[in-house]
Amino acid sequence: MKDNVRIVLVETTHPGNIGAAARAMKNMGLSQLYLVRPQRFPDAEATARAAGADDLLARAVVCDDLDEALTGCGMIVGASARARKISWPQLDPRAAAARLASAGGEAAVVFGREHAGLTNEELDRCTYLLTIPTVPEFSSLNVAAAVQVVSYELRMATAPPSPADQPHLATADQRERFYQHLEQVLLDLEFLDPANPKHLMRRLRRLFNRVELDENEVHILRGILTAVERKAL
Amino acid sequence: MKDNVRIVLVETTHPGNIGAAARAMKNMGLSQLYLVRPQRFPDAEATARAAGADDLLARAVVCDDLDEALTGCGMIVGASARARKISWPQLDPRAAAARLASAGGEAAVVFGREHAGLTNEELDRCTYLLTIPTVPEFSSLNVAAAVQVVSYELRMATAPPSPADQPHLATADQRERFYQHLEQVLLDLEFLDPANPKHLMRRLRRLFNRVELDENEVHILRGILTAVERKAL
Repeated sequence: MKDNVRIVLVETTHPGNIGAAARAMKNMGLSQLYLVRPQRFPDAEATARAAGADDLLARAVVCDDLDEALTGCGMIVGASARARKISWPQLDPRAAAARLASAGGEAAVVFGREHAGLTNEELDRCTYLLTIPTVPEFSSLNVAAAVQVVSYELRMATAPPSPADQPHLATADQRERFYQHLEQVLLDLEFLDPANPKHLMRRLRRLFNRVELDENEVHILRGILTAVERKAL
Repeated sequence: MKDNVRIVLVETTHPGNIGAAARAMKNMGLSQLYLVRPQRFPDAEATARAAGADDLLARAVVCDDLDEALTGCGMIVGASARARKISWPQLDPRAAAARLASAGGEAAVVFGREHAGLTNEELDRCTYLLTIPTVPEFSSLNVAAAVQVVSYELRMATAPPSPADQPHLATADQRERFYQHLEQVLLDLEFLDPANPKHLMRRLRRLFNRVELDENEVHILRGILTAVERKAL
């Protein structure tokens, strides 16, 4: 993932929020933390809440004003809970992350004070305004929680989830052989009506198709059918 | 938004995390909080970090075991940082939210202990496993941060962002009249070469098209052009 997006926290009051923001950033592969006039920093509470992201705190850039923190940045996104009067290009975190991921050069996402957010003068520095969707009557996120949501969307936008070790789905022919085996055993058990086995088999197919069987699971199920044949028939 | 998804926190150690989880839920329109054997609850720190979501804390259901918390739930999603050995239907928060949003009846997302997550026995209760994508070398989110990400995705999945009061984009003909006006003024100012005005005008069009002017902004820009005509020409 590109690490060209700095997270800028303006006049954060609680050092715990700075630590939690650093942890959220590190989880998602971000490392550039800028702090504009933090009330208490460094601070033991920030280090505790960082929970292993103290390297980000150690490298955090403490600035006297927002312009200093934004030096060199092209795209600048300001987080804001309030709907502003003035028309402003407003993005949700997903749309903002998509633009940030495709932006060239350094970029920034700016988060305001715990109780007052960003001033209009600070938002004037921003090329976009970001609003995290919430219920209207309880719209103020904790600042570290907001950093978490934006960092998560940046990771989703830039590092497509790896297919990891998802097991191979069983193929259609493997499934068919299982269904034939199952139908035969159920007929032998006199569970299916030999004159009309189709209806119940269709329900069983729907059930097993829905669970997206992998190859190994088909082997297990057919093993069970074979054990039934051996013991009960 | 449907409010049929309960958030279940298992053996949470820090009451601050319970409060922060409640706040994250309330921001996103969730209200059903279940606590399985919380270490300290109720607690002043939980209330402080809830920051106005103390109604969720007051209504939180404290349970002796996970099965009690899951009573009545159909789809159950277990959050897990670790990639498990056994093949397991694994979803990222977006995919999990999409399934939860379309699930009928009550559903649950289960979050484990701060340091140890969920046990394999607890995950056996779950119909899906959820993993929040992170960098591999720092993969453990704070539990309240994880609740925030999942709650946010649930909101994105169920409450499509309102177009809000996005201003109307200027129409093509309004833009054309502006460009004609601009070209005329720049010719009158002898800024454009009358023999070849096209090249520079194309660059200016690209600039102004890119900013997605709204109607009001076109009025402002044409007002500036008229002021220039009045004073300078």
